[in-house]
Amino acid sequence: MPEYLKLKSLSDAKKIFWENLSQLHPVEEEIESRAALNRVTFGDILSTESLPPFTRSTVDGYAVIASSTHGASDALPVYLDLVGEVAMGAEAQIKLEGQQTALIHTGGMLPEGADAVVMMEQTQKTDGTSIEVLRPVSAGENIVLKGEDVKPGDVVIPAGTPMRPAEIGGLLGLGITSVKVAKKPRVAILSSGDEVIPPENAPMIGQVRDINSDSLASLVAEAGGSPQVFPIMPDDREKINATLKKAYRSADVVIVTAGSSASTRDMTAEVFDSLGKPGVLVHGINIKPGKPTILAVCDGKPLVGLPGNPVSALVIANLIVKPLIQRMLGLAHHRFQPVIEARLTVNLPSQAGRDEYFPVRIFRRQNHCTADPIFYKSNLIFSLVRADGMVHIPPEKTGVPAGETVEVILF
Amino acid sequence: MPEYLKLKSLSDAKKIFWENLSQLHPVEEEIESRAALNRVTFGDILSTESLPPFTRSTVDGYAVIASSTHGASDALPVYLDLVGEVAMGAEAQIKLEGQQTALIHTGGMLPEGADAVVMMEQTQKTDGTSIEVLRPVSAGENIVLKGEDVKPGDVVIPAGTPMRPAEIGGLLGLGITSVKVAKKPRVAILSSGDEVIPPENAPMIGQVRDINSDSLASLVAEAGGSPQVFPIMPDDREKINATLKKAYRSADVVIVTAGSSASTRDMTAEVFDSLGKPGVLVHGINIKPGKPTILAVCDGKPLVGLPGNPVSALVIANLIVKPLIQRMLGLAHHRFQPVIEARLTVNLPSQAGRDEYFPVRIFRRQNHCTADPIFYKSNLIFSLVRADGMVHIPPEKTGVPAGETVEVILF
Repeated sequence: MPEYLKLKSLSDAKKIFWENLSQLHPVEEEIESRAALNRVTFGDILSTESLPPFTRSTVDGYAVIASSTHGASDALPVYLDLVGEVAMGAEAQIKLEGQQTALIHTGGMLPEGADAVVMMEQTQKTDGTSIEVLRPVSAGENIVLKGEDVKPGDVVIPAGTPMRPAEIGGLLGLGITSVKVAKKPRVAILSSGDEVIPPENAPMIGQVRDINSDSLASLVAEAGGSPQVFPIMPDDREKINATLKKAYRSADVVIVTAGSSASTRDMTAEVFDSLGKPGVLVHGINIKPGKPTILAVCDGKPLVGLPGNPVSALVIANLIVKPLIQRMLGLAHHRFQPVIEARLTVNLPSQAGRDEYFPVRIFRRQNHCTADPIFYKSNLIFSLVRADGMVHIPPEKTGVPAGETVEVILF
Repeated sequence: MPEYLKLKSLSDAKKIFWENLSQLHPVEEEIESRAALNRVTFGDILSTESLPPFTRSTVDGYAVIASSTHGASDALPVYLDLVGEVAMGAEAQIKLEGQQTALIHTGGMLPEGADAVVMMEQTQKTDGTSIEVLRPVSAGENIVLKGEDVKPGDVVIPAGTPMRPAEIGGLLGLGITSVKVAKKPRVAILSSGDEVIPPENAPMIGQVRDINSDSLASLVAEAGGSPQVFPIMPDDREKINATLKKAYRSADVVIVTAGSSASTRDMTAEVFDSLGKPGVLVHGINIKPGKPTILAVCDGKPLVGLPGNPVSALVIANLIVKPLIQRMLGLAHHRFQPVIEARLTVNLPSQAGRDEYFPVRIFRRQNHCTADPIFYKSNLIFSLVRADGMVHIPPEKTGVPAGETVEVILF
């Protein structure tokens, strides 16, 4: 059977992979809230209290009974009796009646009886026992009510939310000092190839330094996983078998850059098949770059064979490994993800029936952006270094003409 | 003098702050390349070698002298003599002449004499000593030349570049296993307020938990700084003076959430002034939220007094602290930053002469996005938790009508 008939489309490949991973759920872990930046909430976070915990002033000024300021103006100020000052960090001891007022600071607790605050700038001091109010206020003005932000039982952060500085502040404001988040999936990364040597070593003629282990580890870390880099494997069935088994036992996901030769990729697929059921689901995707991709699920655990060349490996990792990790984190798309549109600067021919991805640089023009494709051969890692993102040409197209607007996936 | 006359515009405030920080340069630090994700290159990174280090095949197939395949077709294949196989990870020992060919794997070193590779799929095996070539190839086809990606002396990553997985892979591919990056600026974070207690403690009536220390620490970490959180300071001149001096000595940047009361803010400004020259440059910005912001430079070191309320503090930290850290990292904008545009769902009134920022949620519609403002009072941290970003209304406008397209700054 010719190879192209065995190749799956990217969408079919992802579909069958996700279907076989339907039992893959986030695992919970409790961590300190202040260390939770970019972690994803495991469940809904509920408040057990009110925020603010008491009615507070939002300005520096004078607490009043709003009705007492009625009709106040520059020409005809209202005089109020100054009965004291609300101390910060303490229960307001003052109780206001009628034409009484009390000095209050931003964040201070509104005294009993008061229902508004007059801003300092709209008052004038007189003799120290009274003030002049130059503008009327309405009930509720310049205050924030107890529980106005959050009430007990409110879902303050839904499950599957990645935490930003605001979420961390919100948790701590409620006294939630530890939080249940999705555990980072452990992702084993294995590189193979007789010609591949550790980056620390000086290559002999015919050898190349390992790029994939650390570029993939960085991508995994960026996506929210915990990378575990294994030593480079030679193109040897026994070594590949032993290392892969070890990785499969210790990690939640196994990624193999499946060597440069077809025979090593076949060995990888055979070992995947031996680890559990159903085994290899996809062996080859009709995509450029990235055709020799292998997707397997063994007893519920995902295994990915990536192409050996570094550009293809990173492109497929962006398209498959990153969403896989996000799924294992339970990431729900609560956050808006920007779509970047740009006009192609040149014609991009592509082969019908195949998904193609082109690295591009983006430039901002007057009213639009342009996407300038970086032409490259597939093992040129620096073509990706020069790129801001990639343009996708779907299988039903035979290319995109210059000037057309395309969507860009940022790296 | 009325307060609004003392307030600086946001652009003036930033201008005078940056001008006084002209001597602020990144500090270099050498780290392992594989741990350099998101770090910023200190200087230009130059290659000392060629990548690829030798001319390689980009496919599985047969190395050939291109001219020998001239005229090949299914009907009239060209027969070539198979003289051997190029071993991976070793120097090619074979030398091709005339009608000779050698089996080669993806990434294998092109043998001497050869100038192209015929893909396996475009050949047929015959008796083991020769092959049939079904398509002609041109010189250079299916190979990548030595130095085609990078040559010795090429700037492979310019100074000021934040490193992504591709950059890390590129460095390691060149054997650059350690890299000079900008040291993370140490950012001291001090919260003050008699009413402010650590988030671990149960608040008494009138007390609130500290939100700012950890939300700002998260923002600093996200921006690439190294946060150092100090214990909460009471509204007491001696304590503020002592803690601020200590922070000033130990950190590269000092941030104080300057307490809730005007008197504490004044104390903060006075201590800033006592630390070095020129001292306080900006005391109050004509912006909402964030008016009570203090910017100071003392003997070349930046100090920022942020408003006590958590929303204002985070908004100003996004507008001033984040760019400050990026400047200290030497971040040059090599990377494309997306601009998010959305149509306002409601009228947003704003005060002429003042910069205003409104938190918004963004929703994707058919052909555009909408920005839905979240109305809030300034101390409601969860209004930011609900937001995707913020909309800026510049001082020359008195608001933006519903339906107008605005730019959104993502958090």
